[in-house]
Amino acid sequence: MREDYLKKLVGMMDTDAILISPGEELLFFTGFTPMQCERFQALFVKKDGTMFYLANILYEGELRAAYGDAFPIHVWHDNEGLPKVYEILKAQGIENCSLAVNSTAQCFNVFHIADNLNLKLSDGKPLLEEVRIRKSHEELELMRRSAEIADSVFDKVCGFIRPGLTEGEVSQFMADVMNSYPDSHSRGGLVASGPNSGYPHYMGKDRVIEEGDCIVLDYGTSYKGMRSDMSRTVFVGSITDEQREIYDLVDRSQLAGQAAAVEGAWIPDIDKAGRDVLDEKGLAHTLVNRIGHGIGYSVHEGPYITQQNFRRLERGMCFSIEPGVYLPGKWGMRIENIVCINENGETEVLNKADRSLRVLDWYKK
Amino acid sequence: MREDYLKKLVGMMDTDAILISPGEELLFFTGFTPMQCERFQALFVKKDGTMFYLANILYEGELRAAYGDAFPIHVWHDNEGLPKVYEILKAQGIENCSLAVNSTAQCFNVFHIADNLNLKLSDGKPLLEEVRIRKSHEELELMRRSAEIADSVFDKVCGFIRPGLTEGEVSQFMADVMNSYPDSHSRGGLVASGPNSGYPHYMGKDRVIEEGDCIVLDYGTSYKGMRSDMSRTVFVGSITDEQREIYDLVDRSQLAGQAAAVEGAWIPDIDKAGRDVLDEKGLAHTLVNRIGHGIGYSVHEGPYITQQNFRRLERGMCFSIEPGVYLPGKWGMRIENIVCINENGETEVLNKADRSLRVLDWYKK
Repeated sequence: MREDYLKKLVGMMDTDAILISPGEELLFFTGFTPMQCERFQALFVKKDGTMFYLANILYEGELRAAYGDAFPIHVWHDNEGLPKVYEILKAQGIENCSLAVNSTAQCFNVFHIADNLNLKLSDGKPLLEEVRIRKSHEELELMRRSAEIADSVFDKVCGFIRPGLTEGEVSQFMADVMNSYPDSHSRGGLVASGPNSGYPHYMGKDRVIEEGDCIVLDYGTSYKGMRSDMSRTVFVGSITDEQREIYDLVDRSQLAGQAAAVEGAWIPDIDKAGRDVLDEKGLAHTLVNRIGHGIGYSVHEGPYITQQNFRRLERGMCFSIEPGVYLPGKWGMRIENIVCINENGETEVLNKADRSLRVLDWYKK
Repeated sequence: MREDYLKKLVGMMDTDAILISPGEELLFFTGFTPMQCERFQALFVKKDGTMFYLANILYEGELRAAYGDAFPIHVWHDNEGLPKVYEILKAQGIENCSLAVNSTAQCFNVFHIADNLNLKLSDGKPLLEEVRIRKSHEELELMRRSAEIADSVFDKVCGFIRPGLTEGEVSQFMADVMNSYPDSHSRGGLVASGPNSGYPHYMGKDRVIEEGDCIVLDYGTSYKGMRSDMSRTVFVGSITDEQREIYDLVDRSQLAGQAAAVEGAWIPDIDKAGRDVLDEKGLAHTLVNRIGHGIGYSVHEGPYITQQNFRRLERGMCFSIEPGVYLPGKWGMRIENIVCINENGETEVLNKADRSLRVLDWYKK
């Protein structure tokens, strides 16, 4: 149970209560999350600092084993259904009031509850992210170590990649390296080879790597609960002149984004700094996603580095800077580092793995 | 694209539109679903029968590849955010109207959209289940075959289970048998051994099976998209007198539930029929879940067999009857068959695997 964060959450709440359904947010605050099925369950945190959990009786055993007596657990039975849920919530004072909901709250359940208990609903996701958006010294130390573990993979995987391997085999190799460290848990990452590199969000693993491929590697680990996330682009055996040019462009775009990310910087300016470099060749439109995302306990959390996030960088914020050029059906490139505004207000780049252009040809020798 | 079901959905809609976010429901209607991240995306089906898809540009490539020109795809960019989503929805006429949402719709996104476009939201999950709650002859044929594949596992797994195996190894064996049939896709199932059998919802796989264990096996497959789901309870090497008694009770409870499940039956009466048998020994309260759930394209869909479902059984409905006795920390037992009200209005039990008490001791011989 993260008492300090729960206290912080309560202090920042502007609703009468917040509902936290199963998922990463619940895990963050309590150290445990059950699976979420169609049966309504959630932790309720009230403005007065009290908490209770409401769940179907099916989950009672595992919840009691995990949570002990941290808060009361109220249960309902399939044969009682939502009417029992309303009854419990009324008894707990959740009626005719305002209720924020977390990112995994299910509309179809929450509507009925709000209708029956006259609740004014609101989006609690930003608040849950705000609570942890400025990392402490201890958290930054874990972020540094997490990045270091990811960095340590890069030279090794460059000595592993060769034509004939599948993307999945490369991902597994990276996972194995990261999981060889104590307290590090990784599922590898994205390995987008050849034409697949043209899709920033590629999810496959079956393509066999070929001579001449461009490969985007995007991976990280969770070290004592804190995440790393980095990307490098490498070339197998050979590279074209056009690719050399674009690699230089992406490299400079990433450096420009990092340079703009200083304490007090207006977030849209960071995105603009990276895109302006891509637009030297009219390619900013190929960067179809945001230039970065906050990171910490989750891989994606606040602050999101977009044109729509009208705030300034503060000490303790951690986020990625990851511009790319994506040419669907052809190839794509991305360079990504995690950056933080550290304890001294400096811009600290957590990832230190080599970013110079690499054409892998060791297997030819 | 299931044109017939989409037409049916439109005919039954009582809102101006319905939003279907990624997940099983989208897969059912369109044959494809992307992953759902925090970026809003959904298929919108309007009362006039027209459809459009709204997604972040990151997903555009895979959506176009999967959906072709089945409906227009409108995209927004991370740097445009929700304001662009509102703009697209307005242009499509989704403003000042009523909108139903499916089971995977994310509260935190949908709230903002509803607030900004003055939408009256409602729970669309029951409608999406209603559309497919009465199976056609062709669908019943697939359900029969799916059940038959699951049935075929039972004798085989009884000849495989022995002390020293883990629960996960037994589950994998069952998956392998089911996946050996064409068009059958299974991930095995729940294998709850010893004290784990006392939890109907047990999710582990690591316990090593021991002499004297009671084991609940709950498994099924997807055959050409239609699901099976069955449970049997077996005993390893030996059985106590108390267990014999309770097995008989659960067996008779399941038969009573099946017998009550006739065309036109009031659903709460089916639950009661099964529980009344368990209460011969005062054990109905140990059945902490519903006695059954609908099944078809999803493992869990309408009609749910609970005291809260005030409707009657109709021709074409398929559902489980699965009473159990669960003694947490000790052991538990369940017997589950899939039952349908078939083309002739008869109660047809799809699972035909042996249900007589089995004490497995082949490995001693």
